[in-house]
Amino acid sequence: MKIVSTVEELRIALPTNQTIGFVPTMGYLHEGHMSLVENARRENDVVVMSIFVNPTQFGPNEDLDRYPRDFERDEKLARDAGVDVLFYPTTETMYPLDMARVTVHHGADVLCGASRPGHFDGVLTIVSKLFNLVQPTRAYFGLKDAQQVALIEGYVRDYFVPVEIRRCPIIREETGLAKSSRNVYLSDVETVEASRIFSALTMAREALDTGQQVDEVKRQLTERLNEIPNSQIDYVELVDYPTLGAVSSDSTELLLAVAIQFERARLIDNVIWKKG
Amino acid sequence: MKIVSTVEELRIALPTNQTIGFVPTMGYLHEGHMSLVENARRENDVVVMSIFVNPTQFGPNEDLDRYPRDFERDEKLARDAGVDVLFYPTTETMYPLDMARVTVHHGADVLCGASRPGHFDGVLTIVSKLFNLVQPTRAYFGLKDAQQVALIEGYVRDYFVPVEIRRCPIIREETGLAKSSRNVYLSDVETVEASRIFSALTMAREALDTGQQVDEVKRQLTERLNEIPNSQIDYVELVDYPTLGAVSSDSTELLLAVAIQFERARLIDNVIWKKG
Repeated sequence: MKIVSTVEELRIALPTNQTIGFVPTMGYLHEGHMSLVENARRENDVVVMSIFVNPTQFGPNEDLDRYPRDFERDEKLARDAGVDVLFYPTTETMYPLDMARVTVHHGADVLCGASRPGHFDGVLTIVSKLFNLVQPTRAYFGLKDAQQVALIEGYVRDYFVPVEIRRCPIIREETGLAKSSRNVYLSDVETVEASRIFSALTMAREALDTGQQVDEVKRQLTERLNEIPNSQIDYVELVDYPTLGAVSSDSTELLLAVAIQFERARLIDNVIWKKG
Repeated sequence: MKIVSTVEELRIALPTNQTIGFVPTMGYLHEGHMSLVENARRENDVVVMSIFVNPTQFGPNEDLDRYPRDFERDEKLARDAGVDVLFYPTTETMYPLDMARVTVHHGADVLCGASRPGHFDGVLTIVSKLFNLVQPTRAYFGLKDAQQVALIEGYVRDYFVPVEIRRCPIIREETGLAKSSRNVYLSDVETVEASRIFSALTMAREALDTGQQVDEVKRQLTERLNEIPNSQIDYVELVDYPTLGAVSSDSTELLLAVAIQFERARLIDNVIWKKG
């Protein structure tokens, strides 16, 4: 595995005339990331992973400074998983001028975008820079960040970015808790309680299967999440996917998405329900 | 020459493994555009031109609706100049979702950016889309839009866009008037008077050559432009190039840029002065 941190080193390390599978991450890798690498390996000649905690997607009061980092551990995990090129740039490398940002007009005013203004501007800004640098054949994103996946798919379509976006399923603990770099900030008790997020989502999906109305499903889901002690609901939403607009009779996929604030970690989770 | 208007047609028309010179335009072609094509032909295997009057770079009170258009004439000029692929898309083609815009943070608050808020956001948005679609080796821009060239160069560097930006000199009438699609809106008398813009700029450049101070040069330039009848100065600026920041003792290139409003046309012009 080649480890590169500058643009020049990356350009030398990238293959020509081979398919490239790209897994952009913020590091502190877990099984979710590893499953992206597995998918990328299966479908491409070469796997490139980036590790970059992107400052522009954190708000002024968010957890940029204490976002967990452990490059040595990440390096070992990436190597063992079969990553060929690990790109580990500095902020100065990724923002040489920082003279323009990608600004999202549609789809960023709901879910995490509503709670984290500017977050998805930062995400699309860094993703478009990384795509230009790596020029991947396919890029792999986990559906845990379902809104991110939808907005990146939208951006790629809107801007004609020559890359195929691959949606990958959420990887969970045996308890159902979605894997997340931020889970490290949960206490033991919180870790147990947080597994109720997924059971609540699963029950909501089953309620949709039985033909229950969206509003009623949302009400029950909210009620169940409210029962999780020492936590606060940030949002509970049922929206059309991937448009992120209101659910209509035309909707074929619904996103049931929630964000729950625990003492030191804000967790997100979701399930996608397909009609019929 | 192939004329294509959809993304699919364009992709089929573009060569593989050949260098592509790209000339993006808003049509109503004149000798300025033709000189860009000449440069592109000399340096590349294939020349792609786009004609697209980009709505997002026009303000609500600007001349989008009456921007001059003549596709038949443009087609003939492009063919005669040796363009290989002419891309003539609709707004729907270029903005399939319009869910995100490129927003300029630095360098858009002076010169034309100050008079035309959002203009350069629109320019960078469409240029980044066109670059993704055409994937040119080199792209050609006229220095008449010197701020545009500087911002596109900045964007390409900031976003690692794999294209070489080529600056091309301003093409002028024999009177000195810079060629522009908007010159068609000048009356005969205005056309004569407008040639005084370039003489004023030339005198300003000569004053810099003789060591005159920037402030004094700007004062004299403003005075001369004020003497042009039935017109109004929009701006007169001397800035560092290509940073577009304030002139300092480190500046090696100065941009002397002006915008003058005539009855039906706002004209811009500039000269670049190199130290020593």
